[in-house]
Amino acid sequence: MKEKRVSARDILQEWDIKDFRVIDKQAISEITLGASILATGGGGDPEIGLLWTYKVLDEGKEILMVDPMEIPDEIQTASTACLGAALVLTEKPPSGGVLNLAIRRLEQYLGRPIQATIPIECGGVNSPVAYAAAGELGVPVIDVDGMNRAFPELQMTSWVTHGVHSSPTVSVDNRKNITVIDTGDDDVLAETLARRVAMAYGGISWIATYPLTGRQVKEASILNSQSIAWAAGHAVMCARQEHLDPIAELLKSLKKERDVEGFRVFRGKIVDIRREFGSETNKGFTLGQVIMEGIDEYKGQTASLDFQNEWLNLRVDGEVLCLPPDLIAILDSETGEPIRTDIMKYGYRGTIVLIPAHERMRTPKGIEMFGPRHFGYDLDYVPVETLNG
Amino acid sequence: MKEKRVSARDILQEWDIKDFRVIDKQAISEITLGASILATGGGGDPEIGLLWTYKVLDEGKEILMVDPMEIPDEIQTASTACLGAALVLTEKPPSGGVLNLAIRRLEQYLGRPIQATIPIECGGVNSPVAYAAAGELGVPVIDVDGMNRAFPELQMTSWVTHGVHSSPTVSVDNRKNITVIDTGDDDVLAETLARRVAMAYGGISWIATYPLTGRQVKEASILNSQSIAWAAGHAVMCARQEHLDPIAELLKSLKKERDVEGFRVFRGKIVDIRREFGSETNKGFTLGQVIMEGIDEYKGQTASLDFQNEWLNLRVDGEVLCLPPDLIAILDSETGEPIRTDIMKYGYRGTIVLIPAHERMRTPKGIEMFGPRHFGYDLDYVPVETLNG
Repeated sequence: MKEKRVSARDILQEWDIKDFRVIDKQAISEITLGASILATGGGGDPEIGLLWTYKVLDEGKEILMVDPMEIPDEIQTASTACLGAALVLTEKPPSGGVLNLAIRRLEQYLGRPIQATIPIECGGVNSPVAYAAAGELGVPVIDVDGMNRAFPELQMTSWVTHGVHSSPTVSVDNRKNITVIDTGDDDVLAETLARRVAMAYGGISWIATYPLTGRQVKEASILNSQSIAWAAGHAVMCARQEHLDPIAELLKSLKKERDVEGFRVFRGKIVDIRREFGSETNKGFTLGQVIMEGIDEYKGQTASLDFQNEWLNLRVDGEVLCLPPDLIAILDSETGEPIRTDIMKYGYRGTIVLIPAHERMRTPKGIEMFGPRHFGYDLDYVPVETLNG
Repeated sequence: MKEKRVSARDILQEWDIKDFRVIDKQAISEITLGASILATGGGGDPEIGLLWTYKVLDEGKEILMVDPMEIPDEIQTASTACLGAALVLTEKPPSGGVLNLAIRRLEQYLGRPIQATIPIECGGVNSPVAYAAAGELGVPVIDVDGMNRAFPELQMTSWVTHGVHSSPTVSVDNRKNITVIDTGDDDVLAETLARRVAMAYGGISWIATYPLTGRQVKEASILNSQSIAWAAGHAVMCARQEHLDPIAELLKSLKKERDVEGFRVFRGKIVDIRREFGSETNKGFTLGQVIMEGIDEYKGQTASLDFQNEWLNLRVDGEVLCLPPDLIAILDSETGEPIRTDIMKYGYRGTIVLIPAHERMRTPKGIEMFGPRHFGYDLDYVPVETLNG
């Protein structure tokens, strides 16, 4: 029996969409760089996601991105992602077909096919993975995500704060173990279960999640977040070639794409890292605190950052300069390459850049679900532009 | 749209089976008492399972039990059970329909209907629950189980040691949360996942598991284990009415049904209980150790028993008298009622009875999977009849 193969192009024709962007290797490398910067220290090793996407392109599969406002309301989409501690991912690279298995089981549970992928977050792994999955499945990827940053927990999305849910979520591993999690509207329980499953798998799982309709994608996503990441990555890559200041180019790009001001607030080197060891197996996150000593005009100042996969907050000489869900990036001052929580080491030097979170992440529900108090800080949320105004 | 209702009687007629036993309230109360005794201190509060089964019978539903050797090879069966810490169960009694939900989702995942239930173990909850589920579903219950005792972990069955598996397992809770676990032939991982899910649900889950064919039921189950429990319960109930020694009647029944000798080895009172507190949330079991001081002819002797939901081993004055998978029951000397690990208290008095495990639990694979070394004892398995010969 021959399986009828569809392609992303067929699907777009069926939806009568003529306007789309073709994602080639240059495009995905720019998107992934931008997404890594917006991942605020998390999101994992871009090499893993990129190599996967390159392989899909090398096999002749096409990856096409469409604007969310173009898609039909009734279509079925889903997100695909890696869930677990990024530190473990480097030890357990994915095998081909693992996301395909998750998607197929999600389709079986839903009783309908997935017609497009939606990236869950901005990250070195989870951004390109959504493109690789789209290419493998022969469906388009939609120019949205659920955060326009990375966040450590499954429910920390604009999707949940706008009333749509992660259930059912299918979690698989390289050995073809499958777990289907269906907790209705209890997204925190879904995260708890998905995290425990990932830990039982050995630290990392691959999930198909957030089965959203086209209408829900439009109403609850961070719209055009892929374009924002792409422009950021493009700006930094151009700066490298033209020997410009990559951080200035990044801030210009964010101003142009999102009309927001970013802040360059510190330059220094890492002098202390306190990792919570055992946390991989206990909680399924990369956890700890890092201390940076200022250099150049910041000499004599001390910055401290907590992290749970991602940077959570920034204090300089005790003064709070950034709180979740606003974004923190530590970037190599020469290349703009982000320093990640899972690979940073003593002596790394970088510039700290702060970026306002997207407005769909700053709703009262958003601040409740992933603001400072959720992460255990006894502080009200104050926007980064107020703290640095 | 009217749903076509089937009944257990229709199914048996379709299979051309004329020989079956009708389970009424008296029958299920005898089966449950016998199962509680064989549960070796575990299996949970019989009231919960019994009340559930009574309710099903009061609704006019029929519960029919068939001999395993009569069923067709190709039919689809499954087990239904409570998985978690029995101590929590008393706090969180089940709501109606919870097992139905698990069975329906298992059928959906398998793509075929469940045509009979198979009790997973002998226990105050899990024995009657298989009957209640059969009555609610309108399918027969088969005269088998996977242990002919209770054991704390999902993979500790004759089914696994005879090459059939618990996957897929569907785990649900009272709030209709659903998790489908499919780990292929990795039954230990299925247990790990099911346990973590139960803990995330709040300590207790209801599962539909071990989707066995009729042929697998015959080849891998403890055959006629329901009849064994029923006869044991009947013997003890008759002894109570006729003022006979319930323990002597129990041992006679086991001799008659299974042709095995049981051993009455100790009488005493509980003088110390060391519970591992916090274990409910950490590991999902009722864990600890109990010390009994001998009375009557055992005066001056000390018995110690470890437990993990069930009694695991017995030492009297340091000498090992019973090792898993052989059975340990502490029974009220007057009524034959079992003293369970989840409800025992300082001062409880009882007689300790030891019973050889079923031969299908004593295979080399069985000893490897649930013998003394599996539970952390640095001891080779020695049959209870050798230790007490």
